[in-house]
Amino acid sequence: MAQLIADKRDIDFVLHEQLDIGAEYKGGSYAEFNRKTIDLIIGEARNLGIKELLPLQKVGDDGCVFDAGSVTVPEGFKRAYDLYCEGEWLGMSDDPEWGGQGLPHAVSMAANEYFYGSCNSFMLYNMLTHGAAKLLEGFGTETQKKQCLKKMLSGEWSGTMLLTEPEAGSDVGALTTVATKNGDGTYNISGSKIFISGGEHDMVANIIHPVLARIEGAPEGTRGISLFLVPKFRINEDGTPGEFNDVVCTGIEEKMGLHGNCTCSLTLGGKGECIGTLLGEENKGMAAMFVMMNEARQMVGLQGFANATASYIHALNYARERVQTKGLTDPAGSAPVAIINHPDVKRQLLIMKSYVDGMRSLIYYGGLCHDKIAMTDDVEERKATNELLEVLTPIIKGYVTDKAFEVCSHGIQVFGGYGFVEEFPVAQLLRDSRIFMIYEGTNGIQSMDLLGRKLGMKKGKPFMDFLEVIRRSITKAKEVEELAPLAETMERFFVRYTEVATAISKSAMSDKVLDAYAFSHPFLEVTGDLTMAWMLLWRATVAAPLTEKKKKDAAFYKGQVTTARFFINTMLPTAMGKMDAIQACDGAVTAMDDAGFGGK
Amino acid sequence: MAQLIADKRDIDFVLHEQLDIGAEYKGGSYAEFNRKTIDLIIGEARNLGIKELLPLQKVGDDGCVFDAGSVTVPEGFKRAYDLYCEGEWLGMSDDPEWGGQGLPHAVSMAANEYFYGSCNSFMLYNMLTHGAAKLLEGFGTETQKKQCLKKMLSGEWSGTMLLTEPEAGSDVGALTTVATKNGDGTYNISGSKIFISGGEHDMVANIIHPVLARIEGAPEGTRGISLFLVPKFRINEDGTPGEFNDVVCTGIEEKMGLHGNCTCSLTLGGKGECIGTLLGEENKGMAAMFVMMNEARQMVGLQGFANATASYIHALNYARERVQTKGLTDPAGSAPVAIINHPDVKRQLLIMKSYVDGMRSLIYYGGLCHDKIAMTDDVEERKATNELLEVLTPIIKGYVTDKAFEVCSHGIQVFGGYGFVEEFPVAQLLRDSRIFMIYEGTNGIQSMDLLGRKLGMKKGKPFMDFLEVIRRSITKAKEVEELAPLAETMERFFVRYTEVATAISKSAMSDKVLDAYAFSHPFLEVTGDLTMAWMLLWRATVAAPLTEKKKKDAAFYKGQVTTARFFINTMLPTAMGKMDAIQACDGAVTAMDDAGFGGK
Repeated sequence: MAQLIADKRDIDFVLHEQLDIGAEYKGGSYAEFNRKTIDLIIGEARNLGIKELLPLQKVGDDGCVFDAGSVTVPEGFKRAYDLYCEGEWLGMSDDPEWGGQGLPHAVSMAANEYFYGSCNSFMLYNMLTHGAAKLLEGFGTETQKKQCLKKMLSGEWSGTMLLTEPEAGSDVGALTTVATKNGDGTYNISGSKIFISGGEHDMVANIIHPVLARIEGAPEGTRGISLFLVPKFRINEDGTPGEFNDVVCTGIEEKMGLHGNCTCSLTLGGKGECIGTLLGEENKGMAAMFVMMNEARQMVGLQGFANATASYIHALNYARERVQTKGLTDPAGSAPVAIINHPDVKRQLLIMKSYVDGMRSLIYYGGLCHDKIAMTDDVEERKATNELLEVLTPIIKGYVTDKAFEVCSHGIQVFGGYGFVEEFPVAQLLRDSRIFMIYEGTNGIQSMDLLGRKLGMKKGKPFMDFLEVIRRSITKAKEVEELAPLAETMERFFVRYTEVATAISKSAMSDKVLDAYAFSHPFLEVTGDLTMAWMLLWRATVAAPLTEKKKKDAAFYKGQVTTARFFINTMLPTAMGKMDAIQACDGAVTAMDDAGFGGK
Repeated sequence: MAQLIADKRDIDFVLHEQLDIGAEYKGGSYAEFNRKTIDLIIGEARNLGIKELLPLQKVGDDGCVFDAGSVTVPEGFKRAYDLYCEGEWLGMSDDPEWGGQGLPHAVSMAANEYFYGSCNSFMLYNMLTHGAAKLLEGFGTETQKKQCLKKMLSGEWSGTMLLTEPEAGSDVGALTTVATKNGDGTYNISGSKIFISGGEHDMVANIIHPVLARIEGAPEGTRGISLFLVPKFRINEDGTPGEFNDVVCTGIEEKMGLHGNCTCSLTLGGKGECIGTLLGEENKGMAAMFVMMNEARQMVGLQGFANATASYIHALNYARERVQTKGLTDPAGSAPVAIINHPDVKRQLLIMKSYVDGMRSLIYYGGLCHDKIAMTDDVEERKATNELLEVLTPIIKGYVTDKAFEVCSHGIQVFGGYGFVEEFPVAQLLRDSRIFMIYEGTNGIQSMDLLGRKLGMKKGKPFMDFLEVIRRSITKAKEVEELAPLAETMERFFVRYTEVATAISKSAMSDKVLDAYAFSHPFLEVTGDLTMAWMLLWRATVAAPLTEKKKKDAAFYKGQVTTARFFINTMLPTAMGKMDAIQACDGAVTAMDDAGFGGK
């Protein structure tokens, strides 16, 4: 039967064959999660996703309604929200102490693939709540945690993140929201925030806003930013929502997609009655934000991936049903065939599949890294895994969301004219995906993070460790006879990549710094290409021997090998060329004057 | 002053400095069009575009209204339509015998850049009318022409093209609309057509539908297709619209963009009362269609380009106003600057500019080719120029619309979060642009056209001529000292391209035909890259000596040289890598089984 949203067989493959999570969890704190339990959990997520969330996708596209400070979510969202919360999915991988379910993160990624792929705009409410809860867990006082954390992880209350202001986007340090000490340990907050996802809505009894603001007299720029906890309704002694806290929604944005999630403008303290408490230390708001941001960025990668996989499955199903003659590629003019057999359609489906497969492996692998951090008692190992995740984060956020948008565009192209028609699901997936390249740090910021922070972090050790993991993977692939030529091509790419990484890293620390940063995004792209090729070769290494051993499933395993072949032989040469440009590091961008751009 | 929609200075540059159209027109049938006249005409087009059409863009996005067979266009469209027709813009480059203005095509491209860039959905009505009129001019009888042609070129009546059916998209030969001879020279038409732009609307007194249908008993496939002229209202003896001709609009599509233009489903002869007359010869409908299609495809390229240039100008203006700190690229933490100074933003603007400039040159050059065809009495020269245009057509349609979509996506990225908000113009430009890659032959079809028809057409002579034009351009560039290194890089690319074109051409005629066609789109991409580099180098060749000679304008000319430098040194290496993959022509796509794609 044709799949919906995501490829069940491939999810199984990544978890149980590629990553072999059962073996990873053996004997550790996740030992109770065997294959049966895991599959049961994912099956439940799949059911909820397809039955309850997927129907929200189209109605969600009609958008939220703003009226005099209130926001009404689309029809059906509240009902689905209650089901989602009843299933205790919001805190599925969180600490049971605060009501979490303690599931392994790799498993939660698979569950989330179904949830986000079914309706990304709905899931964004939960994503924000979860991010805010993690911030609270990491930096909150016992009182703050006791007041809010369980209620947030259960979904009784929701959470947001108040960061952006009209003049402070990527430049967070320019924010002007002010916090004034009240003398009783609380602060009066005053300012305006924009682009607040889920900043106001009617699904919950209270909304907890972590807010970036500057305490009166604090230094300028990012060094003077503190984080505050600002509830929509002040919290009574008994923990119930009390008086309105002067957080007023002044409007919601009309966007090109993700309409089911309201993007709010909020005014705090318009009447001088917005009270917040400090979250973490004074002037350390940015550092706290970055902790949450890493998770949030990984989740945005998952958002993009989930739309890409949904678009792929839709395009695949359509290409198997749609019958047309092959035209020039079949001059004999034989009978029409399903367009999956047309070379250019097939090429596009293979591009989609190679990215989607590579992204799935990467994102689940990221989940497994979180699990390893949770399982180990070895401080060094925990640190190293954490650092590996830090290196992977700009790739997961930046590269994955760039490619997800491309995949969704191919999805439209495979549908032809129908792809442009909103009756079919692929147009919305593209529209919804465009924001993932922007929020939680634009992909330009991600590329600067990779080049300027991650590459040279701790004298380059985490980055070298990342490369070492890939190198070991290539070595394993070389041992599989069938894969040796592919592995060798990949190895040449890998060697070239290390040269180019060294070159751009040097340029970035020389007087060619501006030239180097003009190549930060191309460098992120080839780093992502390397990562995709790594994941696909790893998959092929697992799959190749199984084509003989598990004959019933041979087509699936062969598909893994052919996908790796396609990506390495067809896509990597382009990246090779791009690396030549990065290494040459031509200064055209720096040389271009403002006036040279014309338009005046 | 900041420009809107298009860069006036650059339009001047292409027409008067790069192409030097004044010299081209001297002594010929366009001799009356001197620089002053031309600039006056374009100035008028600019005024109409910015004052009257640009305000339609946002309201057009709200869409048309369908009610019981009628379609109401958005508010303001009718008024603008009347102004556009009063200005006699619809037939601006057409034969005065039929009410045309006889303007040179290169000039009409510049005028159209403003019109389409201001409101593409509005202009699509006119584009279709013009295409239908050209079909009539080429294949109509004197009676048919006398009845309709002047009324269409004046905009009194509009035109369409009825091609697609639910089961016949790219596979036109599968259509099932039937024509039955009535004995009086007319035909009874019966069938259903979809995706008909402007198929029904309230701006005109009559709509003329050219319809592809199969005469009863005609062969299957494309060999049995004839073209018919089917008016919405039958035409009275005195030329006025008469009885309703049983062409019923059954609905309009809800799309992701281009909402101002209604996409109609039409039922012909539902009551058996739809009468049509043959246009051209029996069973020769496809050949006639292809004549019109070439013009239509070039116009779709212009549609894409116009949105790209609009998005570029918006992004440029925004990047000059938006102030943020430079972050990592300026660790000193100096004062915030306009983001046009941020390396990654600048890089994106340069990508946008290089494509937009290259596209403009290419599209105007295409217009000049039309002019040369119109001017010359030399049959051979006319044939050769026509063939050059045929080679350029898949590049103008396929490559330009692909890259236009990319440019519009960069436009959003430069705007950051605001780019996703519909209050700003760049989101709509992206949404509207997505269809250009699909209609008038998907870009996959364009790539097959390039590889399967244009490359080998007439033993490859037209394609060799195309390459020879480029070669001469490179030779000229080498003579400019400042450009010699760039020209040499370009020459290496050119030589490599000719090898790869030969290789893929051979593969396409061997038993590797399916493998080759899996690279037809990448081949179109590198052919387009070559074409852009050619145009940008040509621009630089004209501009470089002028930086000294016309000092007042030095910044503009320097910008031309730097843009060529950026594209050749930064973008071409990637295309070089892609050519390696094309030449290797790996068979992964062919090798992939249906089952290997998974999803079942």
